[in-house]
Amino acid sequence: MSENGTGTAENEIENMNLEDNHDKPSENVDVDNNLDDVVNPWNVSSSSAKGVDYDKLIKRFGSSKIDDVLIARIEKLTGKPAHHLLRRGIFFSHREMHHILDLYEKKKPFYLYTGRGPSSTAMHMGHLIPFLFTKWLQETFDVPLVIQLTDDEKYLWKDLQAEEAKQLALENAKDIIAIGFDINKTFIFSDFNYIGQSPAFYMNMVKTQKLVTFNQVKGIFGFGDSDCIGKISFPAIQASPSFSSSFPQIFNNRKDVPCLIPCAIDQDPYFRMTRDVAPRMGYQKPALIHSTFFPALQGAQTKMSASDPNSSIFLTDTNKQIKTKVNKYAFSGGGDTVEEHKEKGGNCDVDVSYQYLTFFLEDDDRLAQIKKDYSSGELLTGYLKKELVEILQKIVGDHQQRRKNVTDEVAYSYMKPRKLDFNY
Amino acid sequence: MSENGTGTAENEIENMNLEDNHDKPSENVDVDNNLDDVVNPWNVSSSSAKGVDYDKLIKRFGSSKIDDVLIARIEKLTGKPAHHLLRRGIFFSHREMHHILDLYEKKKPFYLYTGRGPSSTAMHMGHLIPFLFTKWLQETFDVPLVIQLTDDEKYLWKDLQAEEAKQLALENAKDIIAIGFDINKTFIFSDFNYIGQSPAFYMNMVKTQKLVTFNQVKGIFGFGDSDCIGKISFPAIQASPSFSSSFPQIFNNRKDVPCLIPCAIDQDPYFRMTRDVAPRMGYQKPALIHSTFFPALQGAQTKMSASDPNSSIFLTDTNKQIKTKVNKYAFSGGGDTVEEHKEKGGNCDVDVSYQYLTFFLEDDDRLAQIKKDYSSGELLTGYLKKELVEILQKIVGDHQQRRKNVTDEVAYSYMKPRKLDFNY
Repeated sequence: MSENGTGTAENEIENMNLEDNHDKPSENVDVDNNLDDVVNPWNVSSSSAKGVDYDKLIKRFGSSKIDDVLIARIEKLTGKPAHHLLRRGIFFSHREMHHILDLYEKKKPFYLYTGRGPSSTAMHMGHLIPFLFTKWLQETFDVPLVIQLTDDEKYLWKDLQAEEAKQLALENAKDIIAIGFDINKTFIFSDFNYIGQSPAFYMNMVKTQKLVTFNQVKGIFGFGDSDCIGKISFPAIQASPSFSSSFPQIFNNRKDVPCLIPCAIDQDPYFRMTRDVAPRMGYQKPALIHSTFFPALQGAQTKMSASDPNSSIFLTDTNKQIKTKVNKYAFSGGGDTVEEHKEKGGNCDVDVSYQYLTFFLEDDDRLAQIKKDYSSGELLTGYLKKELVEILQKIVGDHQQRRKNVTDEVAYSYMKPRKLDFNY
Repeated sequence: MSENGTGTAENEIENMNLEDNHDKPSENVDVDNNLDDVVNPWNVSSSSAKGVDYDKLIKRFGSSKIDDVLIARIEKLTGKPAHHLLRRGIFFSHREMHHILDLYEKKKPFYLYTGRGPSSTAMHMGHLIPFLFTKWLQETFDVPLVIQLTDDEKYLWKDLQAEEAKQLALENAKDIIAIGFDINKTFIFSDFNYIGQSPAFYMNMVKTQKLVTFNQVKGIFGFGDSDCIGKISFPAIQASPSFSSSFPQIFNNRKDVPCLIPCAIDQDPYFRMTRDVAPRMGYQKPALIHSTFFPALQGAQTKMSASDPNSSIFLTDTNKQIKTKVNKYAFSGGGDTVEEHKEKGGNCDVDVSYQYLTFFLEDDDRLAQIKKDYSSGELLTGYLKKELVEILQKIVGDHQQRRKNVTDEVAYSYMKPRKLDFNY
């Protein structure tokens, strides 16, 4: 998992045995060479102030756009309004969500899998997005959830000691737990710990590794001859949680429980690879639901970086830091002067404060009003920032309160391989 | 591990950080391209009827020849005569054996590590060699022994199901146990089982994988772009048992217990790689002691193949099969006619029956007499074969008797991760 917990490269897996059109990229070209937007697990950037062109990305990746029909079906089947991240197109793309809904309709089981690459102690607001949505999915569909912390990946990619990576995984697990996942329905694991406790997981890793060549990972992920063999074989490790047989303790050794993966779209290359190999392993392909990227304070061209403290709001920031960062760094789509703003209005498409509100202000009517008033020039940037600061302070403050109670012992409880409250 | 349980490729690891001359190959050339002898973990062959030129191999690999001084030191320190496989130059090459003897002299601990790639149910006489010698080392030096069964490797390389590979590992474990290893001092493990039970082992795998590039494994093992990523990362799995920290239950979490690896020399490339990365992981380099190859019945040009039942004597062969195979297939160095033989004598250097006797006839005087009489032409090939058949029938028959008592439960006891009868 990347730091955003979320995937890509556009070329087809060599010799990919495509079984459905959704998996079929529209072109077979080299990684990210022919477009301005760079979207892969390690790098996301765009030359446009509006950020990545997601419609183009859907075409490149061969996924499907989430449309009103799908949203309406989710609402109808669950009897609940769709989550605002879904209504607002932040989760915008999918693979085989209708199949998952078919299962739900027939009361057949599926499970959720998401994850995070623990590269720093402090998680930022962008890291929250897939987890907030995953929590909603879990509560709405009442299904088991597995969360992979790829401490091995971070050890392989970063200048980190293995023990440091393990420690970061533990700290990140605490933040994830503080989001409020049900311990009876959620298994959080770090690769360094779980792989060494699960012959079944290791078996699926090796089975995946037998079916993927160096040529393929070179094409999908851009690996080269001077990359270490750990990186080269890693994609199999991120693939393996897509198979229920990797968690015999949860699924009572069932190999056929399908998986839905909520993640940011930069993680999609891992799962295109997974969907390619799954049928050859006798497993079902995982379904996916993809989010856009959470913009950096400085604007949507770049993905946030956990190593640049001013690029985002962190879950460890104080009220004062939040206020200062938003006021100082949040890219404004407003006019250069009050006069100009009143005359021409603000541009919500590039205004980071407005963008953040679409992620965190749940009230649709209020958001629409703000958009109208800001676009018309009636509302000033300062007002938007004030509104955002209050919302962020509340979310971060509440999170910090909950996280205080998450001790090492609590984290270990979530991370212990065990049966969950589901019977198979 | 190869089927012979034993390693090579002659070029230096790219950017190899050589710390001692013993590790320094004499030339830096492509894998096996410049010499007639092919010696690597998957292929051993020679154009000479005498087999591989082992003196050249020592030069190519940069190991040290086992000389009379080393053998005398072993005998002096242990107070025991050297094993006949050592006296007769079948274990002929080493890396840092003197360091191991220094430790023994100072009563400091070390341990033994050997292994086998379980590619078939039936093990043959050649497979016995490293284990027979390892058993002698263990009994002589009274040290722990870990035996790796690389079922994952065989799954990756062969047209085998994973469950079949696991089953072969179990069956091979039974044969190994029947050789007579002390359960209180020996841990046998299959990768598919143990890696999923040992976070410490997995950690060492990933640490090794971080330090070795695709370029390096390409150079050492000849891997190519169309090889699967499982093969590419496998060398780290064979490297990891060289580190005592991979077995915290045995070594009480000590990371500094040195390792001695008895193996056939085709496995050396794995351990050259291991010796390269060990210091960068904060670990000691494993020492090695290498054997020559056990010749096929048809002659020393080829390594035996478990898939060709007539290329060797198997531990499952009946007395009748042993007799028939030796009489029919064992390449003779004798004259074409009795007259010619009596006149010119037999050639022990190419006579497979004589070679086999050097492996299995323990009585030095008797062996010397046979050599003398066969070379002079006094003894006929038929006599040599008769002598050999009796010896093999006894060894195989006794083995079959012992193996009958090795149930699944006995095998599981050896394969259970646990403390051994050594305190650290």
